[in-house]
Amino acid sequence: MSGSLFGNTLKVMTYGESHGPAIGCVIDNVPAGIDLCEEDFVYYMDKRKPQRNTDTPRKESDTVKIMSGVFKGKTTGTPVSLMIVNENVHSSDYDNIKDLYRPGHADFSFDAKFGIRDHRGGGRSSGRETAVRVAAGVLARKITERIGIEIISEYSPVPDIPELDSMGGTVKITAKNVPAGLGEPVFGKLDAELAKAFMSVGAVKAVEIGDGKAVSSALGSVNNDEFTNVDGKITTKTNHAGGILGGISNGNDIIVTASIKPVPSILLPQNTVDKNGNECEMQIKGRHDKYLPPRIAPVLEAMTALVLADAIMTNMTSRIEYFDRVYNK
Amino acid sequence: MSGSLFGNTLKVMTYGESHGPAIGCVIDNVPAGIDLCEEDFVYYMDKRKPQRNTDTPRKESDTVKIMSGVFKGKTTGTPVSLMIVNENVHSSDYDNIKDLYRPGHADFSFDAKFGIRDHRGGGRSSGRETAVRVAAGVLARKITERIGIEIISEYSPVPDIPELDSMGGTVKITAKNVPAGLGEPVFGKLDAELAKAFMSVGAVKAVEIGDGKAVSSALGSVNNDEFTNVDGKITTKTNHAGGILGGISNGNDIIVTASIKPVPSILLPQNTVDKNGNECEMQIKGRHDKYLPPRIAPVLEAMTALVLADAIMTNMTSRIEYFDRVYNK
Amino acid sequence: MSGSLFGNTLKVMTYGESHGPAIGCVIDNVPAGIDLCEEDFVYYMDKRKPQRNTDTPRKESDTVKIMSGVFKGKTTGTPVSLMIVNENVHSSDYDNIKDLYRPGHADFSFDAKFGIRDHRGGGRSSGRETAVRVAAGVLARKITERIGIEIISEYSPVPDIPELDSMGGTVKITAKNVPAGLGEPVFGKLDAELAKAFMSVGAVKAVEIGDGKAVSSALGSVNNDEFTNVDGKITTKTNHAGGILGGISNGNDIIVTASIKPVPSILLPQNTVDKNGNECEMQIKGRHDKYLPPRIAPVLEAMTALVLADAIMTNMTSRIEYFDRVYNK
Amino acid sequence: MSGSLFGNTLKVMTYGESHGPAIGCVIDNVPAGIDLCEEDFVYYMDKRKPQRNTDTPRKESDTVKIMSGVFKGKTTGTPVSLMIVNENVHSSDYDNIKDLYRPGHADFSFDAKFGIRDHRGGGRSSGRETAVRVAAGVLARKITERIGIEIISEYSPVPDIPELDSMGGTVKITAKNVPAGLGEPVFGKLDAELAKAFMSVGAVKAVEIGDGKAVSSALGSVNNDEFTNVDGKITTKTNHAGGILGGISNGNDIIVTASIKPVPSILLPQNTVDKNGNECEMQIKGRHDKYLPPRIAPVLEAMTALVLADAIMTNMTSRIEYFDRVYNK
Repeated sequence: MSGSLFGNTLKVMTYGESHGPAIGCVIDNVPAGIDLCEEDFVYYMDKRKPQRNTDTPRKESDTVKIMSGVFKGKTTGTPVSLMIVNENVHSSDYDNIKDLYRPGHADFSFDAKFGIRDHRGGGRSSGRETAVRVAAGVLARKITERIGIEIISEYSPVPDIPELDSMGGTVKITAKNVPAGLGEPVFGKLDAELAKAFMSVGAVKAVEIGDGKAVSSALGSVNNDEFTNVDGKITTKTNHAGGILGGISNGNDIIVTASIKPVPSILLPQNTVDKNGNECEMQIKGRHDKYLPPRIAPVLEAMTALVLADAIMTNMTSRIEYFDRVYNK
Repeated sequence: MSGSLFGNTLKVMTYGESHGPAIGCVIDNVPAGIDLCEEDFVYYMDKRKPQRNTDTPRKESDTVKIMSGVFKGKTTGTPVSLMIVNENVHSSDYDNIKDLYRPGHADFSFDAKFGIRDHRGGGRSSGRETAVRVAAGVLARKITERIGIEIISEYSPVPDIPELDSMGGTVKITAKNVPAGLGEPVFGKLDAELAKAFMSVGAVKAVEIGDGKAVSSALGSVNNDEFTNVDGKITTKTNHAGGILGGISNGNDIIVTASIKPVPSILLPQNTVDKNGNECEMQIKGRHDKYLPPRIAPVLEAMTALVLADAIMTNMTSRIEYFDRVYNK
Repeated sequence: MSGSLFGNTLKVMTYGESHGPAIGCVIDNVPAGIDLCEEDFVYYMDKRKPQRNTDTPRKESDTVKIMSGVFKGKTTGTPVSLMIVNENVHSSDYDNIKDLYRPGHADFSFDAKFGIRDHRGGGRSSGRETAVRVAAGVLARKITERIGIEIISEYSPVPDIPELDSMGGTVKITAKNVPAGLGEPVFGKLDAELAKAFMSVGAVKAVEIGDGKAVSSALGSVNNDEFTNVDGKITTKTNHAGGILGGISNGNDIIVTASIKPVPSILLPQNTVDKNGNECEMQIKGRHDKYLPPRIAPVLEAMTALVLADAIMTNMTSRIEYFDRVYNK
Repeated sequence: MSGSLFGNTLKVMTYGESHGPAIGCVIDNVPAGIDLCEEDFVYYMDKRKPQRNTDTPRKESDTVKIMSGVFKGKTTGTPVSLMIVNENVHSSDYDNIKDLYRPGHADFSFDAKFGIRDHRGGGRSSGRETAVRVAAGVLARKITERIGIEIISEYSPVPDIPELDSMGGTVKITAKNVPAGLGEPVFGKLDAELAKAFMSVGAVKAVEIGDGKAVSSALGSVNNDEFTNVDGKITTKTNHAGGILGGISNGNDIIVTASIKPVPSILLPQNTVDKNGNECEMQIKGRHDKYLPPRIAPVLEAMTALVLADAIMTNMTSRIEYFDRVYNK
């Protein structure tokens, strides 16, 4: 799969640089008949916007424009293209660092890979691209909600952050009412897809399912979730597994926790090198977040929606009897 | 991508149940001209074999047979098919639990998904499938080693385990001498692919890159790895990032840590339900591991090799100047 | 997609050389609950076997062995692996031509690509690989037949062939009772997928849909199929289009015609070069077909079944209302 | 692969309806360092524009805007997004036929598939989407030209067309200087990919490689292209095969011929049914082509460029020795 393509059945290809004319995506394999309009995006795009004093002061309206695939308020089954025009771009903030490799950023590794880099605002490696994930997630949610799934997020509280520095934190995503049976055996496990989806978000450095890291010191007799029958429904008494067994959802809440690194763009002076390898001291200017969890939370909600919508679609061919339901009305 | 297909450029499709006639895989897009013979597999297959008193007493020779794609000791560019015949199968051990849902296992979720399940030895959800990953990893290593990468593993020491129970642990993988520039921006980040690869291994419940979970309480000024110039090579003074920035390798050691859950097959009595929802007590028979990290370590080495080989191949088209090197000799 | 992987939703990865130990495939995303046993393959494998005096005298039992994915006579939703052991291999027939490039064969182009080649029996480029297509097609037919589709073939009659020579011909495939709505807009058109599937069979040099080449001299007023209502069902009066409009099936018979080149292995002396570029005369030995259409017909039936089964599966997510049918029973 | 996604290594996802705000695409896996600017598109977009009296009078400036992936005139390795704003849209021309199924068009089959359809100008099934193919082809050509390939087209001469009617024709594409070795064995054959690419263009009903349909009545002794050595280069004396053997290019000109159906939008009255199945007579209004070959020729050139660029990229990992060239400079 190419780097900017996500999903196995519901396929999203995103594009755009932080300071380019626009960012956006094309979503293919969208089921026909979903209600979708531009207003649907406002609530979720707003959740991602800077609004705390630890957030960047860069203001974007982040208006999502539907370029294709919707007719008279409904998806038509053809690709849905979404576009967000970039505004409020201060490229000159980056002039003095265009030849420097900012610590904790992708400047060096992008140059090492491509030999060329759009340095303005971090280019493609900027967190700006996550706005498109949130937009695509709005469409994905139409699918997850269709079968009753609810996706919510919590993040670690905003800490006291020493001046001019930044701090890390966590985001916990819970997906409720997920039917048992989503996810594919072996490589396509639901937790594997979630891990990829979460780790693909810039600042995430750890992904845990259910008890996560704590399982490494647990006893089997404690970690196993015993099955029970509650009002005729098979479920488990506990949920150490985070709702996934053998890579397939078991009907419990799916719980995924991401560890978020501190924003690398700190205003303190730092040592680094330039593209010619000369050591130097640098000081970052520009408008930056100091604490990412509240801004990443809606992004991880969106990634969860994309993974689950994809799994829902992939699962529709898992039993031959489902073919009868679709084709022999 | 379908559940049993792994890789974007180097593509591996695996098959096989624990107690079926064989397990194996087909690997497509294998470069021609790689030295490969059946003896190459012995060392790595042996590393995965039970050998400690905490390991299952099930003995398999795990002989890997090359079914295609190799001629006179070299790969030919056509698919390499690998097959391991299953031996020493005690399917009757599972007769008494075929209608029960073992806690911590995939029995229930597989039934929920497919409505049918090969219960013998856990079928497709058995750890047995990981033998094929190790086999495929041997071929992947031929590619990673070609450019000088070394992949090693360490695991948490075998603990004292209360009788009849099991325990969790950790496995840490280090990839050395990885060239800067591997991995794709946005969704195809190298850490995202590693997270998927690791989390797709049955018992893994957490994946951490570099400092991992610890970043959630770190300061940016501490977590940032400052760049420096050592003997003309750009590198970083520290490696909190685990060798990956913006999803692309930066030339440092790549460090990934997996948290492994305790083996769910414990010999203690457990409460559960049967497929009709009747609550009951069960006792697992059969031959089971009690501590997985030493057996999972070679599997995670193999997954790392597969991810890196895939990234190496994908990266070969990342610059137009590389085309000149390949086509205009 | 890698060369030996076929299908978008129902994914088949094949392997094997003409004179290797076996040929076979792995099929992933197989719906659970399909009746499948080894006897199911006999009828279709027999159709492909040499049986006319224009066919090769090489005799293979072509017994298909199911290596995974079936339990108690039903598919379980996990990968189905099929294997056919190669028998009756006369590799020495090829000793004298291992350094020669046979006209009309892939010897030269394989060497140009890979720099190495399993010359025995044509290796991977042998028509032998089509046996696996027929085997995979048997499983695909279980899906196409589930919704009532019938796939039949006709081939041009066996001509008088000058001694020691070979001749070309045609195969016409008709798929009946295909529901309207299969195929995807733009690149994934049903006719595009069929064209790829057919052209991927070694000797096929032209693919026509419906009237095919004849449309190039037709008037629009004649070529257009007018719609009509027959007993409450919308259909067309004629079927110049071959059952596909805009890349999507319209409910009429799907008609595809393939032009098959004469077998390149003729027993007449031919001029060629060896791998060092030396010009020489060669004479092919071995056991070869002289007229391929009757042997390719079952292969093209199988490819049609694979394309249609894939389209049936892909189409199951085409409308959001189908999700209700599958998930909210 | 989803319907609007094309390519295995160089991946293009297109979007857009005939009368929507814009059409466009995202291209991922673009090599970094390619010179690209908006002026590059003008020449090829102009070739596709209506300019003959048999062409539609609809005028579009078809200005291609680069939305991402290019910095200072060079591709950066991140996705290139191209957008063409729709102009000169006369949606009201289609008001009277929105409930009618035009003969030869995709109206009925789209409705059968999706249950909803953007009827304006044919929506997604309009030939308008091919403008995006031409735009993407411009980028693909940068890759094919890098290794010296030249792609040209010829079309059957504009015939005398009875008034108010339309006629079919042919387009022949020749790709010169293609290196031997492109294409993948079995399903990924170069001719299979070309067949898919060509047949995915709306009006194409037959695809022929080299001698094409004529092979069906040829003798092997005549159809075989004998190898010869010309000035130290292995080539063939004739080119019946159209430059491809065993699915892999052999260094000769690649020759593909497409048969184009007559434009279905004729101005003569036709019988049809409406969406409720009522039979009726209809008369098409609007601005339509009468003879497609000259307008499809640049589209098929573009598709050839996309297939060949993709094959060039895929082939870069075909030999392990190429890895040394890229990684051990």
